[in-house]
This record gives sequence, structure tokens and C-alpha cells, in this order.
Amino acid sequence: MWLSRIARCALPGRMQRGSTAVASWRPSQSGRPERPAAPTPPCPAALQFRGERTMAAAAAAALPITRLQLRQARALVEERLVEVEWEDGYKSLYPFTWLRDNCQCPRCTLQSAKSRSLLIADLDIHTGIHTVQVNDNSKISVAWPDRHVSEFESEWLRKRCFSSDARREMQKELYMDERNYWDSKLCLPTANFEEVLHDDKAALAWLMDLRRFGIVYLRGAPLEPGQVARLSQRIGYLRHTFYGPTWQVQDKPQANNVAYTSGTLSLHTDYPAFHNPPGVQFLHCLRTAHEGGESEAVDGFHMAELLRREDPEAFQTLASLKVDYTNTGADYCDYKVQSKNHIINVDSEGQVCRINYNNATRDSVLNVPLGEVQLFYEALKSFVNIMSRPENVLTYLMEPGHLVTFDNCRVLHGRRTYVNKGEKVRHLEGCYLDWDEAMSRLRILRESVGGDKP
Amino acid sequence: MWLSRIARCALPGRMQRGSTAVASWRPSQSGRPERPAAPTPPCPAALQFRGERTMAAAAAAALPITRLQLRQARALVEERLVEVEWEDGYKSLYPFTWLRDNCQCPRCTLQSAKSRSLLIADLDIHTGIHTVQVNDNSKISVAWPDRHVSEFESEWLRKRCFSSDARREMQKELYMDERNYWDSKLCLPTANFEEVLHDDKAALAWLMDLRRFGIVYLRGAPLEPGQVARLSQRIGYLRHTFYGPTWQVQDKPQANNVAYTSGTLSLHTDYPAFHNPPGVQFLHCLRTAHEGGESEAVDGFHMAELLRREDPEAFQTLASLKVDYTNTGADYCDYKVQSKNHIINVDSEGQVCRINYNNATRDSVLNVPLGEVQLFYEALKSFVNIMSRPENVLTYLMEPGHLVTFDNCRVLHGRRTYVNKGEKVRHLEGCYLDWDEAMSRLRILRESVGGDKP
Repeated sequence: MWLSRIARCALPGRMQRGSTAVASWRPSQSGRPERPAAPTPPCPAALQFRGERTMAAAAAAALPITRLQLRQARALVEERLVEVEWEDGYKSLYPFTWLRDNCQCPRCTLQSAKSRSLLIADLDIHTGIHTVQVNDNSKISVAWPDRHVSEFESEWLRKRCFSSDARREMQKELYMDERNYWDSKLCLPTANFEEVLHDDKAALAWLMDLRRFGIVYLRGAPLEPGQVARLSQRIGYLRHTFYGPTWQVQDKPQANNVAYTSGTLSLHTDYPAFHNPPGVQFLHCLRTAHEGGESEAVDGFHMAELLRREDPEAFQTLASLKVDYTNTGADYCDYKVQSKNHIINVDSEGQVCRINYNNATRDSVLNVPLGEVQLFYEALKSFVNIMSRPENVLTYLMEPGHLVTFDNCRVLHGRRTYVNKGEKVRHLEGCYLDWDEAMSRLRILRESVGGDKP
Repeated sequence: MWLSRIARCALPGRMQRGSTAVASWRPSQSGRPERPAAPTPPCPAALQFRGERTMAAAAAAALPITRLQLRQARALVEERLVEVEWEDGYKSLYPFTWLRDNCQCPRCTLQSAKSRSLLIADLDIHTGIHTVQVNDNSKISVAWPDRHVSEFESEWLRKRCFSSDARREMQKELYMDERNYWDSKLCLPTANFEEVLHDDKAALAWLMDLRRFGIVYLRGAPLEPGQVARLSQRIGYLRHTFYGPTWQVQDKPQANNVAYTSGTLSLHTDYPAFHNPPGVQFLHCLRTAHEGGESEAVDGFHMAELLRREDPEAFQTLASLKVDYTNTGADYCDYKVQSKNHIINVDSEGQVCRINYNNATRDSVLNVPLGEVQLFYEALKSFVNIMSRPENVLTYLMEPGHLVTFDNCRVLHGRRTYVNKGEKVRHLEGCYLDWDEAMSRLRILRESVGGDKP
């Protein structure tokens, strides 16, 4: 089973060497994470959960439902529902149309692709039912008026019960959308690079924490380029962009990106000039600067919620107004990218689901009526002020062989100015992935390590 | 300048050989496009425009604004606005804060990256102004209270005027969001594959029509794999998925996708099991079947608008309810993909902006209250019925060397069942791209071919 993050966070905030689980690390502001002067005090639990459930509930939701036996099934002809009664006395209702649509037989489902082959054109959405019966207490069998027969297994059926509780649990299991919010006091989850590459439990713990906290720090990566690509292959494949498959963060002459200078990088997400910015980012430190270059990170979802509480009008402005972003230049090839994105993206349930903010590529084109321009700047300033408070900003200094992985939909990252000297020339290598791919690997690992089966 | 699609569409519906412009072709239902039995009658103009403008207006919007001279500029101190008067007497207003934010000097803008280096932390959003003056009738110069000076060129400034007309024109120019809706009578825009690869005007015409119609048919591609990858390089790079960088559509044993069989593929968009499905799809025909295998396509935006008109409740259901999609298997690597998407995606202005629909990967998990399940099926059936009407479906038979390019956000495609025999073994090669990349190339080509400069 997965380790409880809360339990682990109560341990001293250092990496648990030799453990395959993701550990936690509280970085010092001075950037000396390897040799803490004194034992780090226990890390406080993360600030709050988004979503109502506790960790215990989360663990329960992820458990396969006990193989419940069926007691009986009958058709409610008038309502066009099949009522299934389970051995624990609970009753579930399934619409005729849904059952016919999801017939699992080889004519209706292409088994090798786990895909529906029954066409909507061939689905009678007003079908009646001929008979329904329970077979061996473990499946129900439905005969349709045309004598086609569908069988449904009890576990499969129970997980697809239409009660609001069952639906909620299924959604949690499929999308793992719970988040732990954090601030500067975060015990940064850490893991060992090679363990993540070679041990499924370590990889699962890494991705679980990446999903939940939005940031995980890896150590022990080889001191040569190519490691972010190796890590991306652990998931599947990386996401190519105009900066190439991977890219080198260095101070470059005629830089085509503000990141390729030695100046301050204010807190930002990468690539809001895409309508679909990359979901996950890896940054691997190959060399540090002579001085400076500390990394900064904030929990954008948490910051947006603080803004919603402290300055609701500003939140509303940034969640409703689409800002133009622009990115023109040449790298892997020439590009002229342009997007419109909300700085704070809110889903249909009102949850903050993405931050799109990079002041460098925010366009001079501002598609806002004249009278609303100042309101926009006030809202943006308010948001930036909140995310810049020292108590919200996690600061750390990457060292060669360290690799940070973070959720680019959620975590804003930045960098302090730096000075190169002699061989102390700062060099990071980075790459992107998307969440669909990362979540796919997470589900597969959860199943292979934990035995879960949604 | 770009050819007017309307003008071209009035020509006989055959490919204009030797022309670098995209031509049009009306395919026959019997799938013999190369040798029409009789001259094809003139194609009707596309059904309707989305958006209010005419083609003439579109051409005008894309033209650079005449280099207008400045007559005078003054600060309205109370309103914190700079008023600029142009030689045509028109007046534009620019907020102090916006002007300061968009200072183009080398301290505030990293010129090599065309990006803002001024930080929000350093932007005084309540700044006053010291002086404003016109220089040489071609730029205004603003001195700020701290004596920092910003200069703005007239053309740059005029295009960023905050009037609603100017903002609308700028948005049209940047995003080219106008669409021509179509049905089975579409004169399918066509082009020559090698011309698109090697001639900028042909490539521009191809991408303009791909944007506007959502589908363009190319001929003359070599009869060997690798052509979809070559075409993707014309834009930039392709989008990798779990099916690999490119993929082979063939009848395969133990198919991991319904497309890899010889059965009917009902109208669908690809990969709604991703939260961000690929935006553009290329399919290159290498070999045809002995019998059958005709391709089908419908204009999903047009179909959604028909649904909105004919069955508003169904439209509302499909636009508000998120449907689960699932895709599990192994190809480039193993995958377990899961998403929630609206079948009809509507943007904040109420415009249909994406169709996400594939009946094969629509999940048996349906996160809908019991009482709404039947409504969902009725809505889906209503939508599928509309898109399946013969008058809406464009049907064509691909031949070796033909390559179809289409907008996977908008066009639903399908395939009729087929029979292989001897060497007549159907084989298509496909790949994906995203619209951000395709639009980037479109903007670059528009500038290099047409001399436009947003």
C-alpha cells in the first residue's frame, strides 16, 4: 500500500536513505541541503487538503471493493432500470440503456482494445428487457428482446453504481485530484533518482507525491546531460516544444528566452503562450554558478485560494479575463506562438485547475476595454504580491546531480540572479511532459505495485 | 495576397494543376476522384461563416495598418491616460500603467527574446507621468516621474488601440478563428504534396484552408512511409502519443485500437481520452483495400450548431456534461489513459471550440446521476443522428499517394468496412500535431509570403 504522506512528513525532514519511498527534505534558505547544521525539526503537516477526504479515506477509496456477492436482480420495467441487491443488503440501480450500451460480449466490445465496438447507430436507447438473472452470485445476465445476452460481473457492476457516493469514489480513484497545499515550510518530498528509474515502488511514490504536492526533488542523478530524457522514458515519452526535446538553461548570448540569461526570473509557469502548456517539468542541475541562482517555487493553487479569500475581486478578474501571451523567435525551428489563457483557470466546479502566468511572455496586446485595464493590473499585482511573500516561497539551491520535478499547471517557479566565474558556470537541462502521460504511468504503477484495479 | 476561397470555389471542382494555391475537389461517393465522368458543376459557396466578417473584411483585417502619422499626444492626468491624436483625426487612449508595463527599451524588454524583463514587482501601477511628446510624427516619447523614458512607435501603438474595433481586428489577425461551415457538398480543398513542402505560398494556402475548413486533401505524396513525418517537419515537429511518433492504420491481429481492424469506424475525433487531444491529424494512403474502406468526414462545429438549433436541450446536455473516456493497452509503451471531456466544448463566448467524441473509448464509467442517464443517451443519439445524415457526410476514397490533413478539434472522421485481398491490403500512415505549432507556422508564412506583421 502507499505510504501516508502525513505519516512520512512527521519524520525528521531528511531523506530516508535506502528507502524506496519518497522522503521529505526541508531546504535551508542558504541552499545547503546536504549538510544540515542540526537535525531538522519535524515538518508540519501540509496546510490543508483540497477536497473533503482524509488520508484514511483516500486509502480506502483506492482499495478494491471487497468481492461482494449478488443476492438478486430484477427489472423495474416501468422505470427501465435493473435493480441489483448485494449480499450486504445495498441496492443499486442500472438503466437499461446504459447496460445495453456497455455489453461486454465480443460482438459489442473489441476485447483486445478494451473498447466499445457497438455503434450508437445500433444502440436502441429505448430498449426493453427480456429477462435478468443472477448467475453463481457473481454476475448478472440480461437477455434483451432480440435475444442478445449481456453478462456483467459483480465487482465491475458495483464500482459503476450510480449512487453519488460510488460515483465520487470512482472519480477519485481515476483522477487522483486531491492536493496538499503548502508554503515555504514545505518538507520538500525527495527521492533517489536511480531508485525511481529502477524500482516500481519508488516510482509510484514519486508520482503520487508529484500529483499531490506538485513538486518532488530527486538526488543522485549522473552528472551528464540526458538524465531528464531518461526520466521521461520512465513515464513514456517527453513533450517536444520549440525549444527542442530537451533544453539547456544557461546564460547565452542573444538569449531567445529570459531563462537563458543570468537575471532574476520572477515566479512563473512555463509556456503559457501555448493554449495547452506542458503539464510537468523536469530540471536537472549539471553545474552551479559561482554565486546566486537559488531556485524558488510557490504552490499556485494555494496562492490562488489565498487571493480568492483576501481579494475576491482580483481573483474574479484573473479567473474571467483571458490574457494574451506571445513567444517569437527561433530555436529547434522558428516560432511565432500566440495564446489566450486565464491566469487562474477555474473548472466547472469552481476549483482552481491551472495557473498560466509568465510575465516575460505576457503580450503587450491586452484585449480588455479601456476602463478595465487598471483593474487588471491591480488584480495581477495583488496576486504577485501574495505569491512573493516570504512565508509562501520555497527557496532551495540545486546542486549538481539534483533534479527537480514539478507540476507546471500548479507550481510557479523562479530563479534568483547569479554570477558565473571560472568553471562555476550554471547549467541545468530541462524537459517537459504532459499529465495525461504521467497519470497513465501512475495508474499502471498503482495497479502493479498496489494491486488496484479500477 | 491570399486567394479568396469563395472565388476559387466557383471554379470547376477539380484540382488546379500547376497552381501553387490550394484548389478544391468534389469527391464522388463512389470514390473515383481522379477521373470524373463529366465536368463537375461549380461548387456552391460554403454554407455559412462563423463570425460576422466577409472575405473582403478578412483580407482588410490582415493588411498592415497604413503607417499613420501622429498629430499630437497629451496626458490626461486625472484619468491617468495618454491621448494620442492621429493624422486622420482619430484619437486613441492608453492607460499610464499599460504604457509603463510595455516600455520597449532594452532595460524593460529583452530584445533578443522579444520578451518583457520588467518585473511586476518593479512596476508602479499607480505611476504618474512627467512629460509626453511626439517625435518626428512617428513615435511618442513618455518620460516617467523617475526620468525613465519610454518610446512607442506609431504603428505598434495604433494596432494596440483599446477601442473595441481595434481590439477585435487584432484578435482576428492573431488567432484567425473564422470558420466556413460545410456539408457533403463541400468542394474539398486540395493541394499538391510536394508544392506544400517546397513552396511557401502553397504551404500558406494549405494552412489557411486547414484553419478555415478544417480539412485539406493533398495529392502526389511518394508511395512510401515517412511522408506524414516530412509534412510535420514543414510545420515544426509532430506530436508523439502512445501509438508512437507515427502509426500504421492496418487490419492487425489483436488490435489495440478499433481503427486497426477492417470494421466500420463511426464518426469520431481521435484521442478524447487525452485531456488535450491532438489538434491536427495527417493520414497518408499507401495501399487501398480490395473493396470498401471509403473515408467519411463531417464538420463537427457545423453539426453542433445544427444540434443547438434543432435540439437545444441535447446541445446543452452535451456541452455541460463531462464524459469519461478511457484507453488502456500497449503500443509505443503501455498506457492507461483516462479523461473527462465535454463532447461539445463551448468557449466563454458561447462558441463551439472543440468536439471530443469517440464512441469506442467512451468509458462504461458514466458520472451522471441516475435520473440523467437516459437524457444523456437521448442527447448523444440526437447528435449522432444529425452527423450521420447523408447530406452532412463528405465521403471519399483515398488512393495511394493521397494524404488528408484535418482539424481533429472539429472534424469527425470515419471509415466504412473493407475487405483486403491479395496485394490489395489497406494501409494508411498517420501522425498528429497540435494547433499551437500549426498556427505558429501559419503566422510565419503569412508574414514571409504576405508581408503581414501583427
